[in-house]
Amino acid sequence: MFQKTFLILTLAVLLGVSVTLAPHASGDEGMHPISQIAGIGLKEKGLQLDTSAIFNSETTCLVDGICRVNGCTGSFVSNTGLIITNHHCAYGAIQQASSTDHDYLRDGFVAANYAAELPAQGYVVRVTESFEDVSEPMLAAVNDAMDFTARTKALERRQKELEKQAEDANPGMRAEVAEMFTGKTYVRFLYTYIKDVRLVFAPPESVGRFGGDTDNWEWPRHTGDFSFMRAYVAPNGSSADFSTDNVPYQPKRFIQVAAQGVAEGDFVMLLGYPGRTARHKTARYLRYLQEDFLPVTVDLYQQQIRILEETGKSDRSVALKNLARIQGLANVEKRSRGQLKGLARTNILAERIAAEQRLQSHIEKTRGSKHPQTMILGNIANVYDQMSKQNEYELSLDNLRRGCLSLSLAYSIYDAAVERAKPDLEREPAYMDRNFDQTIQQIGIVQKDFDVTTDKLILKLMLDRVKLDEKQYGALDIDQLYAGTRLLDAEFLQSCLTKSPAELAHVDDTFLQMIIKLYPEYLRLRELNKNREGELNQLYGDLVTIKQDFQQTNFIPDANSTLRLTHGTVRGYSPADAITMAPFTTLGGVIAKTTGVDPFITPPSIIALHAKKDFGRFALPKQNDIPVAFLYDTDTTGGNSGSPVINARGELVGVNFDRTFEATINDFAWNTDYSRSIGVDIRYALWITGTVFGAQHLLDEMKVGNDSAKSKQ
Amino acid sequence: MFQKTFLILTLAVLLGVSVTLAPHASGDEGMHPISQIAGIGLKEKGLQLDTSAIFNSETTCLVDGICRVNGCTGSFVSNTGLIITNHHCAYGAIQQASSTDHDYLRDGFVAANYAAELPAQGYVVRVTESFEDVSEPMLAAVNDAMDFTARTKALERRQKELEKQAEDANPGMRAEVAEMFTGKTYVRFLYTYIKDVRLVFAPPESVGRFGGDTDNWEWPRHTGDFSFMRAYVAPNGSSADFSTDNVPYQPKRFIQVAAQGVAEGDFVMLLGYPGRTARHKTARYLRYLQEDFLPVTVDLYQQQIRILEETGKSDRSVALKNLARIQGLANVEKRSRGQLKGLARTNILAERIAAEQRLQSHIEKTRGSKHPQTMILGNIANVYDQMSKQNEYELSLDNLRRGCLSLSLAYSIYDAAVERAKPDLEREPAYMDRNFDQTIQQIGIVQKDFDVTTDKLILKLMLDRVKLDEKQYGALDIDQLYAGTRLLDAEFLQSCLTKSPAELAHVDDTFLQMIIKLYPEYLRLRELNKNREGELNQLYGDLVTIKQDFQQTNFIPDANSTLRLTHGTVRGYSPADAITMAPFTTLGGVIAKTTGVDPFITPPSIIALHAKKDFGRFALPKQNDIPVAFLYDTDTTGGNSGSPVINARGELVGVNFDRTFEATINDFAWNTDYSRSIGVDIRYALWITGTVFGAQHLLDEMKVGNDSAKSKQ
Repeated sequence: MFQKTFLILTLAVLLGVSVTLAPHASGDEGMHPISQIAGIGLKEKGLQLDTSAIFNSETTCLVDGICRVNGCTGSFVSNTGLIITNHHCAYGAIQQASSTDHDYLRDGFVAANYAAELPAQGYVVRVTESFEDVSEPMLAAVNDAMDFTARTKALERRQKELEKQAEDANPGMRAEVAEMFTGKTYVRFLYTYIKDVRLVFAPPESVGRFGGDTDNWEWPRHTGDFSFMRAYVAPNGSSADFSTDNVPYQPKRFIQVAAQGVAEGDFVMLLGYPGRTARHKTARYLRYLQEDFLPVTVDLYQQQIRILEETGKSDRSVALKNLARIQGLANVEKRSRGQLKGLARTNILAERIAAEQRLQSHIEKTRGSKHPQTMILGNIANVYDQMSKQNEYELSLDNLRRGCLSLSLAYSIYDAAVERAKPDLEREPAYMDRNFDQTIQQIGIVQKDFDVTTDKLILKLMLDRVKLDEKQYGALDIDQLYAGTRLLDAEFLQSCLTKSPAELAHVDDTFLQMIIKLYPEYLRLRELNKNREGELNQLYGDLVTIKQDFQQTNFIPDANSTLRLTHGTVRGYSPADAITMAPFTTLGGVIAKTTGVDPFITPPSIIALHAKKDFGRFALPKQNDIPVAFLYDTDTTGGNSGSPVINARGELVGVNFDRTFEATINDFAWNTDYSRSIGVDIRYALWITGTVFGAQHLLDEMKVGNDSAKSKQ
Repeated sequence: MFQKTFLILTLAVLLGVSVTLAPHASGDEGMHPISQIAGIGLKEKGLQLDTSAIFNSETTCLVDGICRVNGCTGSFVSNTGLIITNHHCAYGAIQQASSTDHDYLRDGFVAANYAAELPAQGYVVRVTESFEDVSEPMLAAVNDAMDFTARTKALERRQKELEKQAEDANPGMRAEVAEMFTGKTYVRFLYTYIKDVRLVFAPPESVGRFGGDTDNWEWPRHTGDFSFMRAYVAPNGSSADFSTDNVPYQPKRFIQVAAQGVAEGDFVMLLGYPGRTARHKTARYLRYLQEDFLPVTVDLYQQQIRILEETGKSDRSVALKNLARIQGLANVEKRSRGQLKGLARTNILAERIAAEQRLQSHIEKTRGSKHPQTMILGNIANVYDQMSKQNEYELSLDNLRRGCLSLSLAYSIYDAAVERAKPDLEREPAYMDRNFDQTIQQIGIVQKDFDVTTDKLILKLMLDRVKLDEKQYGALDIDQLYAGTRLLDAEFLQSCLTKSPAELAHVDDTFLQMIIKLYPEYLRLRELNKNREGELNQLYGDLVTIKQDFQQTNFIPDANSTLRLTHGTVRGYSPADAITMAPFTTLGGVIAKTTGVDPFITPPSIIALHAKKDFGRFALPKQNDIPVAFLYDTDTTGGNSGSPVINARGELVGVNFDRTFEATINDFAWNTDYSRSIGVDIRYALWITGTVFGAQHLLDEMKVGNDSAKSKQ
C-alpha cells in the first residue's frame, strides 16, 4: 500500500503521447518504473495476477514486500522483518562481525533466535512508500542563462529543499529526489528508513562466494549467493538506531517463498533498485568509456587488487580486512573487462552512431542547418572530449584518495570541516545533518579495515602513478608519513572531526597536512565536474525533447536506484558459436568444480549429503540433483543484486545476484540473445539453510512448510 | 598393399587368448594396431566397407593412402603424391620458406604448378609397407642377470641390428623397430622413406592458425588447420634427396576426398601415427607427472615463451624466427596444464591405484606374500621416486641445452664427434649413418632460427634456474660468451663437424669450451636414464605377464608412433555442468571471434565472401553457413595431427588437428563423456583452397568435381 499523501503521477503521463508511439528495442528490454507497469502487458506474457497486485496506490501489494538494503535489493519473506538478499550484499556485515576467533566468512553464521542476531554496522533498509513528479519545481530552479556550475548547484539546492520539505512533513521518513531523464524529469520518492539491521543467517563463503572472482560475471555458476537479515524498529514502530529494546519490523506485506521452485520457460519478474544504466547517453560517451574510462579503471584496479591480495596472503587478519575491498574492486574490474569486450565485439557503438546521424539529419531537415539544436550532439561530444583528455589524471587522483585509507580518512576529516561550516542545505550531501551519522559510521569502517603495510604499498603505487609535484603535497618519504599520523587512533580522529579548517591547519599530523596541500586540487576537480554535469544536464534535457519529437528512442528512463520492475523467462542462451548454456546448474556441478583450493572449496557436510542424494523435496526429479543457480532474460544491472525472482503467482523462486559476462554490456544495451541474469535457486537456499545448516526455524518462519511437495522440474 | 616379404603377425596372436577375454574400458577406446582391426566389429559400428578394404596384406587398401609426415600424419589425396595434412604440421616448411619479403606465414602460399612448389627442408614422408613381430630376437638380447644400463644398451643394439638387417634386404626402405608393450613385445615396421617433400598450398596463418595459442586445445574451434604438400621421388621411383629432376610420387592408393562432408551422428574412423600414450603405466608414474614433471615443464616453458614473445615484438624477422618455437612450447605448455587439471579433477589416479591394489592382492593370494612378483609395483614406484627427486634439476639442465640455441649447436657438434668415433651400431641413433644427414639438416634449421638477444635471455634464465657451479662451465659472463663464439658461421660449424673430440678441445670457441665442461654431466644423465629405462623395461615386461594372467587390462598397446586405427562418431559433448558443445562450428563463428588483433584476424576476402553467403556447394543448408571444424569421439593423441577423418565409405571428410582441453588427459585415460578430437571440415578446406585462394586446380587434382552436389547437413 502506498501513502496517499502525494499525488501519484505516472511517467507515461509525464511524457505524454510519446510513450505509446515509441518503438521498443525489444519485447523484454526495460527496467520499468512501477508507475508504468500497467502498460507493458504482463498478463499476456504469463503473469497470473492482476497488475494491481504488484502495484497500486490503494492497498498493500507486492512492492510493499521489497526493500533497498544499502546498494542492493532485499525482499521481506516473513511478517517479522526477515529479509532475503545476497551473501555479497550482506558481506560487509559478515566481515565486520568476523574475527580470527569467530570467522563467519569462513564458517557461516546461524542465529538461533532474535537475541543471537548480529548488528549489521553501516546497513540501512529503505522501503518505498510513495513518489510524485517534481520536474516542475526542480527545473524552475534553473534557466539557460546560468553558467553550468551554477546550474548544477541550483539543482542540488532545490533537490535538498524538496527532500527537506517532504521529510519535515513526514517525520522519520526519508525523501530522495531522483533524476529520471537527465535535465528533464525528476521524481521524489519517500522511504521508510530503517537503521537497525541485523545479520540472521549467512552460509560460509565457500557456499555464498563459491567460485569467487573466477566465476563472478560468469555462467555456469554454482554460488549460493544468499543471506538472511532482519529489520528492527523501536517498540512504537518508528525507525531507531540499534538498541536491544528494538523489535522486528512488520512490513505491510511479505513475499511468499515458493519451495517448489521454477522451471525452464516459466514467466518471471524481478522487483528491485537497479543502480545506473547509460542507454540514453550518446555514442561519444560510449567511446569515452571504451577508450579512456574503462581501460584506466581496469588497470588501476588490477594493481590495487594485486597489492591487497599479496599482503593478505600470510596473515588471515589482514586478509579479512582486505577481503571486501578486493571483492568490490574485482567486481568492477571484471565487469569493466566484460564491457570492453562487449563494446569491441558488438555493434552497439555503430548502431548508436547511426541513430545519432539519423537524428542529426532530422534536425537539419526540420529546423534548418543553422538551428541551435544542430549543435547539441556536437556540444555533448565536446564535454566528453574534455573528460577523455583529463581521464588518466583525474581517475588516478581519485584513486589516490580512495585507495590509500590514510588519505581517505584525512580527506573526510578536512572535507567535513570545510563543508560543515556551511549552512546545511549548501553542504555536499554526505555532510548534511541527515547523512552525517552514516558518514561517520563509514569512517569507522575505513579505520577498521586499515592495514599499514597494504596502505603504504597502495600510496606508493598511486603517488608514482599520479606523478604529483612533491611540492603539491610535501616531500616526506612514505615511512615518515606513516610515522607522523595518528588517524588510526579513534579518539584523535573524533577530536579532529570537531575542529574547523583553520584549527586543522595547526594539527600536527602528516596525512592531514598532506591533504590540506592537496585539497584545492580536489576542490577544483569537484567544481569542474559540477560544471560538466550542469552542461550535460542542459544538453541532455534538450536532447530528450528532440528525441521525443523524433520518436527515436524508447522512453523507459535509465536506471537510477529507484524501484523498477523487469520481466522475462527462465531460459538458457548461446554465448558463442557451438556453445549452448542450459538455464540450471546443479550441486553435481559444484562438486565437479571443487578442488579444495579457494574459491573452489566445498564443506564436507555438503559433499556427504550430495553423495547420499539427501535433497528431500528440493531435488530436480529428472536429475536427482539439487538446482543451484538459474538463468532468465530479464533486464538487470547492479543494484538488482538481491532482487527477488518472482513467479507468475507472485511468489519468490530465487534471488538475483549477477549477470553473465556477455550481459555486462547491459548497462549500455540490452539484447535478447545474450542478456541473461543469474539467480540462486530458492530450493538451494532452503536446502542449505535448513538441511545443511539446521536453521529449520527460518523455513518455519517463511512458512515454506515441510510437506512432501516435490520440486517443479 | 603390403609387401609379402615379411610374415604378418597380429598382436592378437602375440598375446594369445587374453585378448578375447580382456574387458574393454569403453566401446570406443583404443588406438588399434592395424593388425587387430578385424576383431573390433567396425561393420556393426557403421563401416560400409569390408574391414579388408582398410587393411589386408594382399591388395592395395586404405592404409596405403596414409603416410607419416615427420611427427604428423598425412593422407595422399591424389595419384600424384598430393598430401593433405595440418597447417601446423607444415608450419616448419612454411616458416623456413618465409622471409619479411615473402611472408607465406602471413599471406599464405599457393603453388600454381609443380615447378612453383617449395622444398620443405627437414621434411620426410614415410609410408608403412609391412611389419612383423620381432619380440623374440629382441628379448633374446637380454637376460635378468644384466645390469639395467647394459639391458637398455643391449636392446638398443639389437634394435639397430634388426633395422639394419631389414634395410640391407630392402634398399631405399627404412626399418624401425617399435616397442608395443614395454619389455614384452616388439614389431619391426618397414617404410618407404621419401626425402623430397614440397609445400603446395598453405592458407595464411590467420586461417591456418586462427585462434592461435588462445584457442589451441579448445572447443569451439575455428581454425582452418590444413595444408597441402607433395612427395617427390627420383624418375625411377626410388627415394631421393631434393632435385628438380624428381617427379611426383605415385602412391599405391589415395584417399578420395568427399566434398559433401559429414553430419552429426555419422560413423568416422581415423588412420594415423599417434605418438605416445601412458595408459599402461602405473599410478606412481601419473603422480610423478602430476607432482613433478608437468608443473616444472609448465613453469620452464612459460618462462621461455615469455622471452621469445617479448624479443619478437618489435622485429618481424625475429618474430618469424621465434614463431615455430613459441608454437611448439605453447602447445606442450597448455596441454600440460590441461593434463594437470584433468589429473586433479578426475578419478584417473584413484582408479589406477585401486586397480593396482586389486592386482597386488591377486598376486599375494595366488603366489604367496613372499613371491618376487609382489615386489614389482613397489620396484616400479622406486624408479619414479628417484625421478621425482631429481626432476627439477634434470629438466632444467635439459632445457638449458635445448632452450639456448648456442649451447644446443655446441652440444650437437661435440656429441656428434664423440659418437661418430664409435662403430655405427654403437652410436646414439641421431649420429648413425642412416640418420646423420637428417641431424645435420636439423642443425642448419637451429642456426637459421638463431637470434642473439633471445638466446642471451634464455641462457641467463636457464643458468639462474639450474644453479650450476660456475666451475662446471667456466666463469665467463654472458656477453663474453657470445662475443667468443663463431657457431653461427656455417663454414666454421661445418669444419667443427669434421673434428674429433680431442681436436675440438683445442678450438677457440666459448660455447664449445663450455659444453666440453658440461658434457660429462649430460653423459652421466644419459647413462642414468638408460639405467632407469632398463629397470622399467624389465619390470613392466613382468607386469604385463601378470596382468595377462589377471586379465585386468585391455591389450591395446600404448601409442608408439606406429600406424593405428581409431573409430567413433561425430558428436558434441558437455565439458561441464550446464554447458553443451555442438559438434560443428561455422564461419559465422570465425567472424564473431574476429577482433583484428592476432590471433583473431580474418582476411577481408573471407569476410566479404561470408557477407555474400558465397559458399557454393559447401554450405550447411540449414544454417546457410559453412562448417569450419567438427568434433568426434575417437581416441587420438599427438601424432594424429593431420590424420584423415574417414567416413563409412572410406572417403576423407576432414583432417584431424587437435583435442579438446578436457581430452588432453587422453594420454592417460580415455573417456566417452569428454574425450573429443577436433578436425577441420573438408568443406572448409576446399572452400578456402578453391573459392577463397583460387587453387581450383588442386580440387581438380583431387577429383572432387564442381557438380551441384549439396553438402550433407
